[in-house]
Amino acid sequence: MIPDILASRYASTEISAIWSPEGKVRLEREFWIAVMKAQRNLGVDIPETAIAAYEKVRDRIDLESISQRERKLRHDVKSRLEEFCELAGYEHIHKGLTSRDLTDNVEQLQIFRSLRILRIKAVAVLHHLADRSLRTKEIMIVGRTHNVPAQPTTLGKRLAMFGEEIMFALSRLDHLIEHYPLRGLQGAVGTRLDQLVLMNGDEKKARQLSRQVLEHFDCPAAMNAVGQVYPRSLDMETVQALITLSSGISSFARTMRLMAGQGLATEGFQKGQVGSSAMPHKMNARTSERINGFHQVLNGYGSMLSRLSGDQWNEGDVSCSVVRRVALQGAFFTSDGQLEAALTVLSEMEFYETTIAQELRQYLPFLASTTLLMEAVRKGGGRESVHEAIKEHAVVVAEKLQKDELSQNDLAQRLAEDERVPLDLQEIEAVLNDPERFAASAPEQAETFAEKVEKWTGRFPEAKKIVPEELI
Amino acid sequence: MIPDILASRYASTEISAIWSPEGKVRLEREFWIAVMKAQRNLGVDIPETAIAAYEKVRDRIDLESISQRERKLRHDVKSRLEEFCELAGYEHIHKGLTSRDLTDNVEQLQIFRSLRILRIKAVAVLHHLADRSLRTKEIMIVGRTHNVPAQPTTLGKRLAMFGEEIMFALSRLDHLIEHYPLRGLQGAVGTRLDQLVLMNGDEKKARQLSRQVLEHFDCPAAMNAVGQVYPRSLDMETVQALITLSSGISSFARTMRLMAGQGLATEGFQKGQVGSSAMPHKMNARTSERINGFHQVLNGYGSMLSRLSGDQWNEGDVSCSVVRRVALQGAFFTSDGQLEAALTVLSEMEFYETTIAQELRQYLPFLASTTLLMEAVRKGGGRESVHEAIKEHAVVVAEKLQKDELSQNDLAQRLAEDERVPLDLQEIEAVLNDPERFAASAPEQAETFAEKVEKWTGRFPEAKKIVPEELI
Amino acid sequence: MIPDILASRYASTEISAIWSPEGKVRLEREFWIAVMKAQRNLGVDIPETAIAAYEKVRDRIDLESISQRERKLRHDVKSRLEEFCELAGYEHIHKGLTSRDLTDNVEQLQIFRSLRILRIKAVAVLHHLADRSLRTKEIMIVGRTHNVPAQPTTLGKRLAMFGEEIMFALSRLDHLIEHYPLRGLQGAVGTRLDQLVLMNGDEKKARQLSRQVLEHFDCPAAMNAVGQVYPRSLDMETVQALITLSSGISSFARTMRLMAGQGLATEGFQKGQVGSSAMPHKMNARTSERINGFHQVLNGYGSMLSRLSGDQWNEGDVSCSVVRRVALQGAFFTSDGQLEAALTVLSEMEFYETTIAQELRQYLPFLASTTLLMEAVRKGGGRESVHEAIKEHAVVVAEKLQKDELSQNDLAQRLAEDERVPLDLQEIEAVLNDPERFAASAPEQAETFAEKVEKWTGRFPEAKKIVPEELI
Amino acid sequence: MIPDILASRYASTEISAIWSPEGKVRLEREFWIAVMKAQRNLGVDIPETAIAAYEKVRDRIDLESISQRERKLRHDVKSRLEEFCELAGYEHIHKGLTSRDLTDNVEQLQIFRSLRILRIKAVAVLHHLADRSLRTKEIMIVGRTHNVPAQPTTLGKRLAMFGEEIMFALSRLDHLIEHYPLRGLQGAVGTRLDQLVLMNGDEKKARQLSRQVLEHFDCPAAMNAVGQVYPRSLDMETVQALITLSSGISSFARTMRLMAGQGLATEGFQKGQVGSSAMPHKMNARTSERINGFHQVLNGYGSMLSRLSGDQWNEGDVSCSVVRRVALQGAFFTSDGQLEAALTVLSEMEFYETTIAQELRQYLPFLASTTLLMEAVRKGGGRESVHEAIKEHAVVVAEKLQKDELSQNDLAQRLAEDERVPLDLQEIEAVLNDPERFAASAPEQAETFAEKVEKWTGRFPEAKKIVPEELI
Repeated sequence: MIPDILASRYASTEISAIWSPEGKVRLEREFWIAVMKAQRNLGVDIPETAIAAYEKVRDRIDLESISQRERKLRHDVKSRLEEFCELAGYEHIHKGLTSRDLTDNVEQLQIFRSLRILRIKAVAVLHHLADRSLRTKEIMIVGRTHNVPAQPTTLGKRLAMFGEEIMFALSRLDHLIEHYPLRGLQGAVGTRLDQLVLMNGDEKKARQLSRQVLEHFDCPAAMNAVGQVYPRSLDMETVQALITLSSGISSFARTMRLMAGQGLATEGFQKGQVGSSAMPHKMNARTSERINGFHQVLNGYGSMLSRLSGDQWNEGDVSCSVVRRVALQGAFFTSDGQLEAALTVLSEMEFYETTIAQELRQYLPFLASTTLLMEAVRKGGGRESVHEAIKEHAVVVAEKLQKDELSQNDLAQRLAEDERVPLDLQEIEAVLNDPERFAASAPEQAETFAEKVEKWTGRFPEAKKIVPEELI
Repeated sequence: MIPDILASRYASTEISAIWSPEGKVRLEREFWIAVMKAQRNLGVDIPETAIAAYEKVRDRIDLESISQRERKLRHDVKSRLEEFCELAGYEHIHKGLTSRDLTDNVEQLQIFRSLRILRIKAVAVLHHLADRSLRTKEIMIVGRTHNVPAQPTTLGKRLAMFGEEIMFALSRLDHLIEHYPLRGLQGAVGTRLDQLVLMNGDEKKARQLSRQVLEHFDCPAAMNAVGQVYPRSLDMETVQALITLSSGISSFARTMRLMAGQGLATEGFQKGQVGSSAMPHKMNARTSERINGFHQVLNGYGSMLSRLSGDQWNEGDVSCSVVRRVALQGAFFTSDGQLEAALTVLSEMEFYETTIAQELRQYLPFLASTTLLMEAVRKGGGRESVHEAIKEHAVVVAEKLQKDELSQNDLAQRLAEDERVPLDLQEIEAVLNDPERFAASAPEQAETFAEKVEKWTGRFPEAKKIVPEELI
Repeated sequence: MIPDILASRYASTEISAIWSPEGKVRLEREFWIAVMKAQRNLGVDIPETAIAAYEKVRDRIDLESISQRERKLRHDVKSRLEEFCELAGYEHIHKGLTSRDLTDNVEQLQIFRSLRILRIKAVAVLHHLADRSLRTKEIMIVGRTHNVPAQPTTLGKRLAMFGEEIMFALSRLDHLIEHYPLRGLQGAVGTRLDQLVLMNGDEKKARQLSRQVLEHFDCPAAMNAVGQVYPRSLDMETVQALITLSSGISSFARTMRLMAGQGLATEGFQKGQVGSSAMPHKMNARTSERINGFHQVLNGYGSMLSRLSGDQWNEGDVSCSVVRRVALQGAFFTSDGQLEAALTVLSEMEFYETTIAQELRQYLPFLASTTLLMEAVRKGGGRESVHEAIKEHAVVVAEKLQKDELSQNDLAQRLAEDERVPLDLQEIEAVLNDPERFAASAPEQAETFAEKVEKWTGRFPEAKKIVPEELI
Repeated sequence: MIPDILASRYASTEISAIWSPEGKVRLEREFWIAVMKAQRNLGVDIPETAIAAYEKVRDRIDLESISQRERKLRHDVKSRLEEFCELAGYEHIHKGLTSRDLTDNVEQLQIFRSLRILRIKAVAVLHHLADRSLRTKEIMIVGRTHNVPAQPTTLGKRLAMFGEEIMFALSRLDHLIEHYPLRGLQGAVGTRLDQLVLMNGDEKKARQLSRQVLEHFDCPAAMNAVGQVYPRSLDMETVQALITLSSGISSFARTMRLMAGQGLATEGFQKGQVGSSAMPHKMNARTSERINGFHQVLNGYGSMLSRLSGDQWNEGDVSCSVVRRVALQGAFFTSDGQLEAALTVLSEMEFYETTIAQELRQYLPFLASTTLLMEAVRKGGGRESVHEAIKEHAVVVAEKLQKDELSQNDLAQRLAEDERVPLDLQEIEAVLNDPERFAASAPEQAETFAEKVEKWTGRFPEAKKIVPEELI
């Protein structure tokens, strides 16, 4: 048998358990039992002993036996139904249910439970990022735009920047979870015909049934008007929330790869990991690359589901079946694997402060040009002429450095000697030697980020204790 | 010059105005003025008369003149800056701003204002759907799954079903709008260096500046830690909200096309429209097809933006530039065009009740099988044997009807004659002649939907008055 | 363990075998042996007995043992290498190879062999389509555009139409296969350093090595300048070829679903299949729906791979790793499952000729309007006035039929009575009673299609014998 | 009016002319005339003078006049038809044509002509790449995998690597062009009914008509069995060919951005370009970023079109209409803009050889490890123990360099002193001082690439003369 790659290599045991064949059968049985209890509450003739019998055998899951039934019956739901009834010795489940009443709801419960797990992991990612961000909020670093040095920032601020993108996505994921609507028991075309017949046409009872089932599973909302299936745009929305969550994580990983390439950072080595035999010195940012890979995979699953949205025919069809089978569990495995990988990087990454400081020294005269301009204007220089002078010299120095015609950045001297610039070398160096002023709001932004994260860890304190599973 | 196809053929004048070159220049000037006012409030030396001078010339927009400057300066922001300053006769705008401080915020304002317009149109779509749904909540119709007759439902319920999918998307769009965060004035790498220098290092003032600008534009939130640009996943999220909104609309349109093909409905003819000359009888569901087309276009724009998300390098780069230029306005034009088209279909569509009733009659004996089963069991029939009997006859009759070996559905007679079924013809026909019982909760679901819509129209009463522009 | 859904439910055993863990290990060993033989031929010191020893144990694949090694070594290639060497009792494989020299080529061979299998299945699909098309080339059917009746065509022509779309895709797939370039043994950054060292700097021998390996695997081409990896756009191209192949198949399936909905066709029932218990009459086009679902899944995998293309950093990185693991085998399982499903539908589908004929009768007066116009003009009618008359009556009749104000299409009478139309009822009915003339080139187009298919079955005669595996 | 962004900012005048409103009207008229001539040749009664009259006014295109007609007639084809006829004073065009006979073919001709232009530009890109590659084939450079130094390669080889990816895409584009099939005159549902009637049922003449039209436009192939439209998977294939072409270009641009970030290269400055005023030293790889942006845009258009493929209903529908309007011209403008941008970068880019050499010196001891291992083994060292020694020292040195605990890479000394390594410092330095040996096949691969390019420039010599339009 060919194992699912994502589950076997990347996803955590917790998420895998939800989507495994056993996990699905267990959840389905839980759903049948919950419906049975609610039906009994509302007067349907189901003996207490029957419910007890079903509960007793709920976890006796024999996939091979179910599979044999399916080969005979050629109907998946029916074979699982028969198996469960035979184990329990009763026939009281699935009353007034169509197949989709069962499968759509069970799949939604898998989704719902997975979302809640991922939410906590996302909070854990933020927790680690905030921690690192605070600890490095004052470390000056060359900020880059267009991938070339631009202005100084701080390392902690850079981490906070990615963190805030992740936090924005977390808010939206949270909003989805807190409003996630279950399809409920709505029958073959969504009119609740069968449940109504079972309740002798009592609309109120049919609604109560629905409410009791929701409560059992701690679900926040139910749908009102659906067809055979719930709208597939909900699946797209769900996976889209994971994609958005992946975006900040992925940008962070990409920047880790860039920083590794410049010798500024390493994502850390897994203990015992064998480096490339041909190139033992290499500190590859493999996990960061993997995080970026997950991002693409997730987008692909999102793309599959987006192709179901807006394509419902009448009360529904099953061109969605294989797509959802592949894309939903795939997306959850991927997102979970990505969060695990991110947690690993976050706890093992290191920054090379010496190299970081060297790089800053090298570029500082350039990066300080705005500040020098301001100082010069303050001392009476003409804005336009000072700007012109700075530009001229900066371009020349940059070029000479590239071509090795200069061994050191001498922009300061050049500016001091230019009569358009009313600053002497001492004054210029005073600016350059005071890098903290270039940090501007960066440290404060890191702090503000960390404060926001605390609201999340306050709500989900268990996130602080999460330890990623060991990566393969 | 090649005109933008979406703007020239599909988008409304209101949305086009926001994204037109003039509209963008006007908004940019509005932004500069708002910043200037806030800076003055906070002590920056800007004379009141200067602000007045800028305000006076705000709407004197000469694209050709700007364009000539750009050819000379080779810098777009600088050329618009010079133009505005020369018109006003002052040089007080753009203080402490980098190009992105201007352009990112202005683009976000275009987005924000467009979102608010689309929200109202989406409410208008729901208003029409609810109205039609209520009026047709009792009209029985053949519900279809897998595109073949399944169980009865009502026309109003079918409309409500699509409506609820749209409403779910509207909630999420609304959530986005109510939390939409503006990047604000954050400088070249996001540390607010230039504004801080301008405010003499006063962090509090820098924050106040930001707040005052937000208030001017009625924006709900600001970002804290960003780079040169705001995270591009926000753009993805934004367009994704439009895609989700498109999904329910698109499923509705697809079902209109199916119903037109079965002769059950028409989306209506535009006045004066020339039918195909070769096929004058044809009532093509062209606008519904167009709605579906818009859905694919929107997804394509979403795909473009999703490729920027998770790909930020350090503090940002501009590989996003051309992508956002194309995809953002494209997405808004498309979504707007789709809503306009949907409003047109909703106000002109007609349902052929006679054909609908005929179809129902033809299939009713099949569709009633669950109910007949229940009745038979109630009269003492064995569940399994009655089910077997119904199945046998149903398959035979279905096949014979297909092959024209039967002129009429005689399932009722066959069942009455089968001894496994303890119902006589009269009893069976009593069931068949009482179609309302098959409607089950459908009418009530339509009502519930309409009640939910009223909450939206209560919040946005202007939505009720929206009339779509004439389609090309 | 969670099984791969696509492999376990949809893909054929032949394709699964290629991508299974065992299959991959076997192919990898085949590759190592082929390289060893070529190296020996070119003078590398490898004893014949060693090669024989490796060949002898090639198929002794113990995944558990490999897995244990990997847990210890934390390096996948190394663990498989050790396992194979230990089994053989020699250490002669992998000389001068980097990991990617092994894995990239082995993956390409999996792809290449899979492509060749799918090509034959695609020919088999065409073979069935051509057969059906020929047998139904004269059966008149209502041609539909915009999903409403337009002009007559024939059933065989309709099938040929989808067939030609598939054939176009097959040509491109074939072109890909016949030019598929293998990366070859190129070393860590693509300069062939290690092989060159092994061959003492003899460029010619290095090229010969490459050629001999290609020949062993019957591959048509090799790459010249690559990095650590081959360009990932080749993977995108490969899966794109499968997506294109899927397009015609998917359009065919979609039309089957529409025809099923109109009662014109059934895709057939699998033997023993239990219909929906609640709706036993339903003949759902489930397999056609599945085919459409596969199309979306395939596109999603294509989307994953497209996100690797154009994103190579320097000589390569492994952000592609997880993406390719998921998407490549996923795409092949999907495409294979789709072809299997298509073959099943093609061999079991039935068309209801009576219903088809009825529908034609109902619409014929409309569909014949162009021809009637021509006849009327030929008899001296004014083109414009005749057209006007036809249009007026057609619209009225269409509307009255929809509203049940007419029990029968009486367009013929109305035209005969209109003085603008110089045809009497007899003449009009002569046209209507001669439907063959409306078929125009349709039968001939079906024949031409079948002739083209014969060229493919001539080249791949085994395609005629392909029988799909039983669907789950 | 809102101008099309891609056309107005990025696409060349040549491509824009094909897709402009005027260009489309002109091509449509050319098509009508070609059909008329062929019809006359085959005996249809069309006077020579009429054809001459049409030809005379072909270029008198008054979009405003056409637009006025359309507002009145509400039918786009009809309004252009009337305009042309009135200008010519005849009514002989459009005989036996349906709207799609005109529009589908004209759009295909726009596509076909655009493809041929892009092919030449792609050859021009290769020509420049080959030229640069040859000139730099010996310049040693640090090859990077995982974005960190791996093994040496040459600059020319790196360029050749991207070039070969582009060349692979060009082959496939070429194959598409040389087999591009035109839909032809097939009538409302593809049965050629109207042309057959016009030719009095003479199938042979109908085929000749098709052939003569093909020849007029120099098209290689025609379709046989289509519906109202040609299969939309052809459009997907077409744009996919552009995406594949974009991939190698885009990977090249991405590596330029990385090299710019490391100070190894610049894409050059446009003459007169104003650098960022705040950061005058910055040499941003803006055009390379733009090239990457185009790649994402192109993929988005591909995604739009992929959503039409496999979704044909019966003989066709127009849910494709707005999608094709947007995506086809968008894709061609984008691809053209990308090729123009690539040509600009290729002619202006510079490499900083000093910095390149410095980087190589810094990493060489690491990069040489494989070679040192080989040498040591040759001198009698144990493979495993030498490897272990190299690994140990390499990791230590790498770490110390990062942390600035070493000012220089002293791996050579360390190895010389380690007794497991039977090489002295002199021997080790002999290896390090002979960098050419590390180049391995790189220079030859660059040459081979250039030779392959010559075949293309031989076939399309005009490619050598192409000069990109100035970028905005």
